[in-house]
Amino acid sequence: MIASTGFMFLGFVVFFLSHSCTTTIASIITPRFPSSILRPELISSSKGQVVYESKYFTQTLDHFNFQPQGYQTFQQRYLINDKYWGGAKNNAPIFVYTGNEGDIEWFAQNTGFMIDTAPHFKALLVFIEHRFYGKSIPFGGDTDVAYSNATTLGYLSSTQALADYATLIIDLKKNLTAEDSPVLVLGGSYGGMLAAWFRLKYPHIAMGALASSAPILNFEGITSPYSFNDIITQDFRGVSENCYKVIKGSWKQMEKTAQKPSGLEQLRKSFRICKNYITIDSLVNWLYTALVYTAMTDYPTQSNFLNPLPAYPVKQMCKAVEDPMVGNDTFAKLYGAANIYYNYSGNAKCFDLNDNSDPHGLDEWTWQACTEMIMPTNGNNEESIFPPSQWQYSERASSCKMVFGIEPRPNWITTEFGGHDIRRVLKRFGSNIIFFNGLRDPWSGGGVLESISKSIVAIVAKEGAHHVDLRFSTEEDPEWLRQARKREIKIISKWLQQYYHDLD
Amino acid sequence: MIASTGFMFLGFVVFFLSHSCTTTIASIITPRFPSSILRPELISSSKGQVVYESKYFTQTLDHFNFQPQGYQTFQQRYLINDKYWGGAKNNAPIFVYTGNEGDIEWFAQNTGFMIDTAPHFKALLVFIEHRFYGKSIPFGGDTDVAYSNATTLGYLSSTQALADYATLIIDLKKNLTAEDSPVLVLGGSYGGMLAAWFRLKYPHIAMGALASSAPILNFEGITSPYSFNDIITQDFRGVSENCYKVIKGSWKQMEKTAQKPSGLEQLRKSFRICKNYITIDSLVNWLYTALVYTAMTDYPTQSNFLNPLPAYPVKQMCKAVEDPMVGNDTFAKLYGAANIYYNYSGNAKCFDLNDNSDPHGLDEWTWQACTEMIMPTNGNNEESIFPPSQWQYSERASSCKMVFGIEPRPNWITTEFGGHDIRRVLKRFGSNIIFFNGLRDPWSGGGVLESISKSIVAIVAKEGAHHVDLRFSTEEDPEWLRQARKREIKIISKWLQQYYHDLD
Repeated sequence: MIASTGFMFLGFVVFFLSHSCTTTIASIITPRFPSSILRPELISSSKGQVVYESKYFTQTLDHFNFQPQGYQTFQQRYLINDKYWGGAKNNAPIFVYTGNEGDIEWFAQNTGFMIDTAPHFKALLVFIEHRFYGKSIPFGGDTDVAYSNATTLGYLSSTQALADYATLIIDLKKNLTAEDSPVLVLGGSYGGMLAAWFRLKYPHIAMGALASSAPILNFEGITSPYSFNDIITQDFRGVSENCYKVIKGSWKQMEKTAQKPSGLEQLRKSFRICKNYITIDSLVNWLYTALVYTAMTDYPTQSNFLNPLPAYPVKQMCKAVEDPMVGNDTFAKLYGAANIYYNYSGNAKCFDLNDNSDPHGLDEWTWQACTEMIMPTNGNNEESIFPPSQWQYSERASSCKMVFGIEPRPNWITTEFGGHDIRRVLKRFGSNIIFFNGLRDPWSGGGVLESISKSIVAIVAKEGAHHVDLRFSTEEDPEWLRQARKREIKIISKWLQQYYHDLD
Repeated sequence: MIASTGFMFLGFVVFFLSHSCTTTIASIITPRFPSSILRPELISSSKGQVVYESKYFTQTLDHFNFQPQGYQTFQQRYLINDKYWGGAKNNAPIFVYTGNEGDIEWFAQNTGFMIDTAPHFKALLVFIEHRFYGKSIPFGGDTDVAYSNATTLGYLSSTQALADYATLIIDLKKNLTAEDSPVLVLGGSYGGMLAAWFRLKYPHIAMGALASSAPILNFEGITSPYSFNDIITQDFRGVSENCYKVIKGSWKQMEKTAQKPSGLEQLRKSFRICKNYITIDSLVNWLYTALVYTAMTDYPTQSNFLNPLPAYPVKQMCKAVEDPMVGNDTFAKLYGAANIYYNYSGNAKCFDLNDNSDPHGLDEWTWQACTEMIMPTNGNNEESIFPPSQWQYSERASSCKMVFGIEPRPNWITTEFGGHDIRRVLKRFGSNIIFFNGLRDPWSGGGVLESISKSIVAIVAKEGAHHVDLRFSTEEDPEWLRQARKREIKIISKWLQQYYHDLD
């Protein structure tokens, strides 16, 4: 039974938004990734020419434990493109995308940077799918078994995923007789965290990492739990103080309306919710999702990452909020904003709240957010565009206990990968990592925003959103984005130059 | 049923010695660590004054897997001494010994370097016991359960041990409010491998590592499988060409004798073997053990690491071999050599071959040698002091399959920790590791013998044996040993200085 919005998923990380009035029991709401547009075996880039071949690698179930059941294997998918590769004889580089929480084809389609730069670098391109996602499902590929309980899901963890990548890359290089080819790992979001961690943990396999929008510091005791929503707030407020105020003021009004007789019906009509299902919580979550995802993907060009969106969609949302045609109806204003996110194509007749919030869809990321990826993001202070709330670890813990019967390990990620005092620790240790962050991205608050050493470099784009640098380049890209990519290419070139120098 | 000496334990690493004539089925022979001389809770140093307090930490069974059974905990023992500590307020350093395969008290007793230098560094001293050894036994401390099969032993691995150390150190520092105290990890042998790997994998927890006699390169495809026995050969040959020839020539003679009627009885008498048990294989193993361990612990002063031994015991063995009183009897010569290792105290009336070679003693290290620690050491070329033989991975694999029902993962350690092209990989990555090696130590062939960067430094002592630098200093220490320790102290001081500089 769903009583409130205890926590919800946002793109790739669970975050808690307990709005002030109703929270009692946590529910789990997961978005679906738009993978239906992808063909199963070969995917085209948005430029229409480049295709990846889909292959499978027999992967070990548990790398760190030698119990007989850990010796089981599963088929891990990876996509490969050798069109631009300079070949093993020339020790030409291999660019590996360290897949994150979703179908790898989705990431391949949204990481045009690799294809765009492959001809220049003569790079072999590889996208490895994260275990338990897409088609890389342990237990014979049967998701009914793999997702059934903590005993099967137990094998889903970031450390196992990194060891998968290590094992696969070594095998791939051996099969290609490309042992001396330098490997660069790349990733965005959780995939960026994996890329950075991979360089730190497996320097013998990857000579460098481009970690885009990787919130490796978004853990307890490092990054403020208010940071995430502060940035979203600033994104809207930066466009228009009035837009921010309208949205901020709307939540109480919705609560009040919902408490009136036939208030929910009024809300349903205002937001064109289909007749099948509405609660105040599901409606609020639906609106939160639109605001948060739009802030995350506030790209300077038209995009289709989570949903189809216009260029600078936050600006478009505020434009809708302030549309003089709408008059003074707050709900109509908000509806206009939601319409940008949910109905940019203009085809929707009504909206199904279940579409983006299936409370029974316990999926893989929920598991990760309940075990190790405890990233406090749901604090809202007085200034927040959302109602005030506090990050409560105990809420997460009790929800996870309820759902999976296990306790989170909130300190594990920083134990295993560090994060505290990162500047001091990495000042004299490690090398060759680029941390890209766009400051409009709510995750940037948990990113590395200052360079740590000569070769652990932060690139910060004030106007950038979530891993915008990794997207396909377009004619319309603004200068700051071109410059950011140019800098990345320059740094990677330098790393490669050093690598070949050391190889001789 | 024991048919031959397929593989045997040497100090800390299984190694195969299949002597030319008899090998068919592998057996497992394990030495016992001399822990009986230690008191259970407090141990004195050889200097009689310093004591460690024994404590326990509640440790997670599986760090990398979130199955419910991995959430089980066990009591991990650590020894602690704060007599010299400068305290948390002063951010005084913490020296942590990363325990290896045995009772941690044994390592504390043989790592006097920490106590010897503690007053200078004002260091807190901690020795952490490796899971599944000593008193740090999962499954309620019940070895009958913990060692019973692959399902329980599965949790015994180097990566889990490193994660144990990370978790324990963080908790300990928190409890001492010593979060800003620098941690130096130290270890010898497998413990040295763990120390080096810990610095590489957990730089956010340890600011440096002293890895003594850590054969991190003694894996397939990096170090020659002949290296180990080549060094032993050179140890004896370096003392006396004749001594080497006598020992080398004795194996055939023993085989021949054993094949004669009552030949075994003759051998039994020659080597004063007690009447309970003798086979040619057990006798040969018994002699191998003496030669190998003596080479490993060829310390410049009297010692009691594996067995009580005089200073420079290889020289003493050769002296016994060449004792003019013995005449021309090869067996009597060899007996004299074995007597140095097995009977330095002079109290033994006869020798029990089972004492050092219980074929049914499947212990923890056997498991590690059958899963991840596949370190090829048993090759013997024509010049070897032992009969010619080749490293055969397949022999190890089939023995392990027979004993535990599982396959080794021979490439796992280099996948996880690297090793190939280590100079190239670490030239521009990582910092603050000292690799000490003594060239008389057969394990030195798999060690890092050349400095890699300004702060990844090799210290090589031509006359040194297995982690001799970590032993208690004595009045009789030769100059080269004093100098090696002095250099270590100087380097560690520099790291600390840098750490405090960065802290400010």
